[in-house]
Amino acid sequence: MDEIGRLIKFTSFGESHGVGIGGVVSGFPAGVGIDYEFLKQELDRRRGGGVLSTPRKERDDFEIYSGVFQGLSTGAAIGFFIKNENVRSRDYENIKDIYRPGHADFTYMKKYGLRDYFGGGRSSARESVARVLAGGLAKLLLSEFDINIHSLVYAVGSESIDLDDLKDDRGNFKEEIFKSNSLLVDRLQEEILKAKNSGNSVGASALICVKGMKSGLGEPLGYKLDSSLASGLMGLNAVKAVEIGDGVLSAQKTGLENNDFMDEMGFKSNHSGGILGGISNGNDLIIKIHFKPTPSIFLPQETINYDNSPINLRLSGRHDPCVGIRGAVIGESIVALVLADMLMINTSANLHNLKKVYSQ
Amino acid sequence: MDEIGRLIKFTSFGESHGVGIGGVVSGFPAGVGIDYEFLKQELDRRRGGGVLSTPRKERDDFEIYSGVFQGLSTGAAIGFFIKNENVRSRDYENIKDIYRPGHADFTYMKKYGLRDYFGGGRSSARESVARVLAGGLAKLLLSEFDINIHSLVYAVGSESIDLDDLKDDRGNFKEEIFKSNSLLVDRLQEEILKAKNSGNSVGASALICVKGMKSGLGEPLGYKLDSSLASGLMGLNAVKAVEIGDGVLSAQKTGLENNDFMDEMGFKSNHSGGILGGISNGNDLIIKIHFKPTPSIFLPQETINYDNSPINLRLSGRHDPCVGIRGAVIGESIVALVLADMLMINTSANLHNLKKVYSQ
Amino acid sequence: MDEIGRLIKFTSFGESHGVGIGGVVSGFPAGVGIDYEFLKQELDRRRGGGVLSTPRKERDDFEIYSGVFQGLSTGAAIGFFIKNENVRSRDYENIKDIYRPGHADFTYMKKYGLRDYFGGGRSSARESVARVLAGGLAKLLLSEFDINIHSLVYAVGSESIDLDDLKDDRGNFKEEIFKSNSLLVDRLQEEILKAKNSGNSVGASALICVKGMKSGLGEPLGYKLDSSLASGLMGLNAVKAVEIGDGVLSAQKTGLENNDFMDEMGFKSNHSGGILGGISNGNDLIIKIHFKPTPSIFLPQETINYDNSPINLRLSGRHDPCVGIRGAVIGESIVALVLADMLMINTSANLHNLKKVYSQ
Amino acid sequence: MDEIGRLIKFTSFGESHGVGIGGVVSGFPAGVGIDYEFLKQELDRRRGGGVLSTPRKERDDFEIYSGVFQGLSTGAAIGFFIKNENVRSRDYENIKDIYRPGHADFTYMKKYGLRDYFGGGRSSARESVARVLAGGLAKLLLSEFDINIHSLVYAVGSESIDLDDLKDDRGNFKEEIFKSNSLLVDRLQEEILKAKNSGNSVGASALICVKGMKSGLGEPLGYKLDSSLASGLMGLNAVKAVEIGDGVLSAQKTGLENNDFMDEMGFKSNHSGGILGGISNGNDLIIKIHFKPTPSIFLPQETINYDNSPINLRLSGRHDPCVGIRGAVIGESIVALVLADMLMINTSANLHNLKKVYSQ
Repeated sequence: MDEIGRLIKFTSFGESHGVGIGGVVSGFPAGVGIDYEFLKQELDRRRGGGVLSTPRKERDDFEIYSGVFQGLSTGAAIGFFIKNENVRSRDYENIKDIYRPGHADFTYMKKYGLRDYFGGGRSSARESVARVLAGGLAKLLLSEFDINIHSLVYAVGSESIDLDDLKDDRGNFKEEIFKSNSLLVDRLQEEILKAKNSGNSVGASALICVKGMKSGLGEPLGYKLDSSLASGLMGLNAVKAVEIGDGVLSAQKTGLENNDFMDEMGFKSNHSGGILGGISNGNDLIIKIHFKPTPSIFLPQETINYDNSPINLRLSGRHDPCVGIRGAVIGESIVALVLADMLMINTSANLHNLKKVYSQ
Repeated sequence: MDEIGRLIKFTSFGESHGVGIGGVVSGFPAGVGIDYEFLKQELDRRRGGGVLSTPRKERDDFEIYSGVFQGLSTGAAIGFFIKNENVRSRDYENIKDIYRPGHADFTYMKKYGLRDYFGGGRSSARESVARVLAGGLAKLLLSEFDINIHSLVYAVGSESIDLDDLKDDRGNFKEEIFKSNSLLVDRLQEEILKAKNSGNSVGASALICVKGMKSGLGEPLGYKLDSSLASGLMGLNAVKAVEIGDGVLSAQKTGLENNDFMDEMGFKSNHSGGILGGISNGNDLIIKIHFKPTPSIFLPQETINYDNSPINLRLSGRHDPCVGIRGAVIGESIVALVLADMLMINTSANLHNLKKVYSQ
Repeated sequence: MDEIGRLIKFTSFGESHGVGIGGVVSGFPAGVGIDYEFLKQELDRRRGGGVLSTPRKERDDFEIYSGVFQGLSTGAAIGFFIKNENVRSRDYENIKDIYRPGHADFTYMKKYGLRDYFGGGRSSARESVARVLAGGLAKLLLSEFDINIHSLVYAVGSESIDLDDLKDDRGNFKEEIFKSNSLLVDRLQEEILKAKNSGNSVGASALICVKGMKSGLGEPLGYKLDSSLASGLMGLNAVKAVEIGDGVLSAQKTGLENNDFMDEMGFKSNHSGGILGGISNGNDLIIKIHFKPTPSIFLPQETINYDNSPINLRLSGRHDPCVGIRGAVIGESIVALVLADMLMINTSANLHNLKKVYSQ
Repeated sequence: MDEIGRLIKFTSFGESHGVGIGGVVSGFPAGVGIDYEFLKQELDRRRGGGVLSTPRKERDDFEIYSGVFQGLSTGAAIGFFIKNENVRSRDYENIKDIYRPGHADFTYMKKYGLRDYFGGGRSSARESVARVLAGGLAKLLLSEFDINIHSLVYAVGSESIDLDDLKDDRGNFKEEIFKSNSLLVDRLQEEILKAKNSGNSVGASALICVKGMKSGLGEPLGYKLDSSLASGLMGLNAVKAVEIGDGVLSAQKTGLENNDFMDEMGFKSNHSGGILGGISNGNDLIIKIHFKPTPSIFLPQETINYDNSPINLRLSGRHDPCVGIRGAVIGESIVALVLADMLMINTSANLHNLKKVYSQ
């Protein structure tokens, strides 16, 4: 059940403190140029660094084992691997039989009857490095069709920036707001540092926006586009809510306010977030995801151990004070994987498309 | 791609104005008592009626075609069918080449190159009658394990009720709040009638809560419990946002506020909504879903037709002013299907469980 | 697990003595003309009749419930249903706790803990009527690409006709041998009547041949064309062996004898059966399937009942003396479903194809 | 589409002359002891060596990257990798635009538009090393339930040994015939050497037998046991036919001859090969697979190049004269993967089993 996708399938393996993290992308179409430099940049974007993220340093050098020949994808499964470095497993020996609040320790133990307690093992966000590499491959495919994915962290804790100010008069986000390398305005950064300096952590919200969309992507009724995006994004560590278009807000509106009218130029607004009936309408995709605060904090917490005895826990270790920052990049990767898969599946939606492929 | 689930699979067929709506549930375990009366009640709950829902009347008599023998499920595929009644296709002839705002007309046309324009065809919410019947079967299975699913519409348009008032001191919703047959307090009902009487529609938000949960349900990393719930629920017509536990709010908190501490009695709060690392922790599931307003309204709207010419549209027909009311019941059904599937899959999570089954 | 296919998915429901047999074909592309007359003919071909098949008579009138609009497929799930007629359940009351030799009675009981004992319930070959209808839909799609599927029963019991006599000088079967409506030469028919008249039954072998093949169909490594054909065909009731190309015989040859050489005209022979590395090479597909004799015979047999007590069993009822005759038609249907699915999947095998679809 | 299995999923990556071959087994249950020595032995069995197989030498040292903690499986994805050694890519430069007869060169080129021409790239039998390691893991799980898988090469070219001599009086193969390390009697070995010494190759047939079977494995109708075995085995390189039980021979018999009668001790014969209605009956599984001769031979062959020009080809390189020898071991691995998956799925076949797992 570890895979994502139907035609382009991604599966991963590896634990936080194991040899490394790897993945396989199968069903990837042949003939796509595999730009290693771009993939490296994507990993760098996820890796973070600086005062806002974990002091654990990984170079995240990756190796592609298969599926690429003379610079092009071959259609064969693309296997890759990223070694773990800078592993400090001793941080975990003293909590090996304790359930850390907000972590998966309790549920893994109940489900599997044993668990790899080093750094969260399989449940660690370290796994997301494979998602970002796989997502990078998907982005390379999408870029052949001028489909581009952007993200922006727009809220941290109690601070946020007003997204409505960033839209054009047809309700779409202006492309330039995504251009800056800095994801965060000062106000949001301070919120993170405040949490970090007090041994606490803080949640965050990110916008993901796709420009250059094709219409027709998404397979009703069981594999709708919004359904698949929600599945992939809610499956990311720490994500607790997913919104499409106006999302939660749409529940507070009337139909007259919420319907997107059309003229010869297309949709006059984008409350729907670019999806109608589970299928893309060609307008920008607009998605919001909400991350809970990092569960690892350095303040006293109440919990229990394997023997159901109460424990006063005070964690040490190295953790991001706000997982949402790196999470936005990971979110982009998931959106890329979903869209690449949908692009492939949609080619056979109707006889007209099929004939285009098989005619000489 | 029309199916939901991995071991228990549900697929449906049928259009709004066709012969009827049917479905198949395969992989359903043998030996479960199939209570027809209960299934009828579930369909009745979805059907609505009264001033708050569509004047289109269906009795929703269903027929189970297979998979049940002498009152028990046999393990074979359960096929069922519900005839459409009260179809008024003439309502649609005059809009057959017009894209109704907020509907899937545009995207179906772009994807498939043709479309069934009667009542939305395949994209109609009429299809949900199959989901409710399939969900009813799933509920029958879950009830064998004392797992029960409840829902509550807690917000309509600008009106809402405060959910925090309905929780016990461990953060769980009190069971009695779900007992009433009336989903709605007067304040919310008035909001619907206000929309209806003005030819408009209105959005709504619903809480779904599962009591009696088992721990261990959910398959990381590709088929997590929260991921699957989000997939199924976002796949419902009109749903634009899904939250697990504290959802959007969790992005505004610190780790200290958001982590659920534990004592000998279990979790002291339920911010997580009963899921950690994609696996159920045995606490109540808490989910919120948000419905956009019904796109069919009886006010003037701007749109285009197949020839890309602007049209001033004024719809007639029969529509719910607030799809969220019936949507809450449909949401329960999806949650039931997801949980039943997860319950099945989890049986083989570890060798200990497997030995229980195969030992004599 | 009841479905066949990845993009075009087929699932069925219904038991031998239930209300009827139905099915759902989802993922079928929009825009394909649905020729009801052709579908009826396909059902008629399966139905058999005459002295060689079961005296149980069914008209096999089918109803398509969905997915077709104004004569064309819409891309929505195609649901269909065929009522059972001429059911004589009383034939089965006296064997309700007895395991009939060669039937699935024993295994269904062990797996599910209960069973529908009327006419084999879900394990009855009656289910194949849904496969033939679904296969008919697949054939309609394939015919748009001039891909045609033929079959021929070439052996019954100890009698057979020499297939090598029916090939052209490049190792392919001449199309005219499939033209006759009569599947069987007299010699083979007599073998069936001999079995029937003695209360016995007899096995049979069938050739399935596909003309007009496209190259490139099949997805290595997990969904190869030969692999999928074998899966679908071995999944048919009574099939005990599947061969591709020279099949069993290829194990007895040298490489020099078995390799298909090429010249400017293409392959000079067709030992491979049209598949290399799990992918079609554009040459005719050649497949052989082998059916065991009908397990229902009217001679004394030794078996046990639910209490593990020995029983001398003498069946009555209505059964085909040789399931292979109708089985050949069902085999065609499965091949059609597999090929239609592969045709769809292959559209996204490489970037060049994808660009054909998405370029304006 | 590269994966095999539904609950335990196996996917592989890697090419003949790339960095190595890897795989991922996900859904493997927690708590199974991972015996590295046994896995090494399985790889050794596949590796062959000696005069009968390829002179290409690989040590096949494997590394398990994940999913094992303190000697036990954790339930997380098991990733592994086996480096390629002894790669001589220069053997392939001169045939890079030539279609080798009997190989996948032609079909890969047609499907993907480009191909990795070193050693067959992705279509090489080298990939099977991953299948054997994954199959080894599956065998470790099956051995917890005393299910054991054996194989025997019983025919090479025109020589064969009579299988009926090796059966007991209930139609099952005696366990001791599988005990010898030597798969082959002298007569068969000589047939291989004869082919090898003449620059030719030869086909072979292998028996696979499973002892200690559970009844109830297999999911009708779309994922029957025989169907899944046929799928996996026909998907192996060079396999052109799969038989279950009496297979091809069953088509030549009457029902009276073919039905397996029962007494208090169980089945009195095993013509069915242990499967009825797609479900295991608890009797030994009996399967036969037939391998074509290795397509790489060192004799003159006619073929064409990418420009459709005729070529007289004379290959050099290193190849097994008879792939069936190592193929039998690979076949065991596939059977192990299928059975492990079926064992998992079957745990939720009925309510009685489910209650065993979830009761305290």
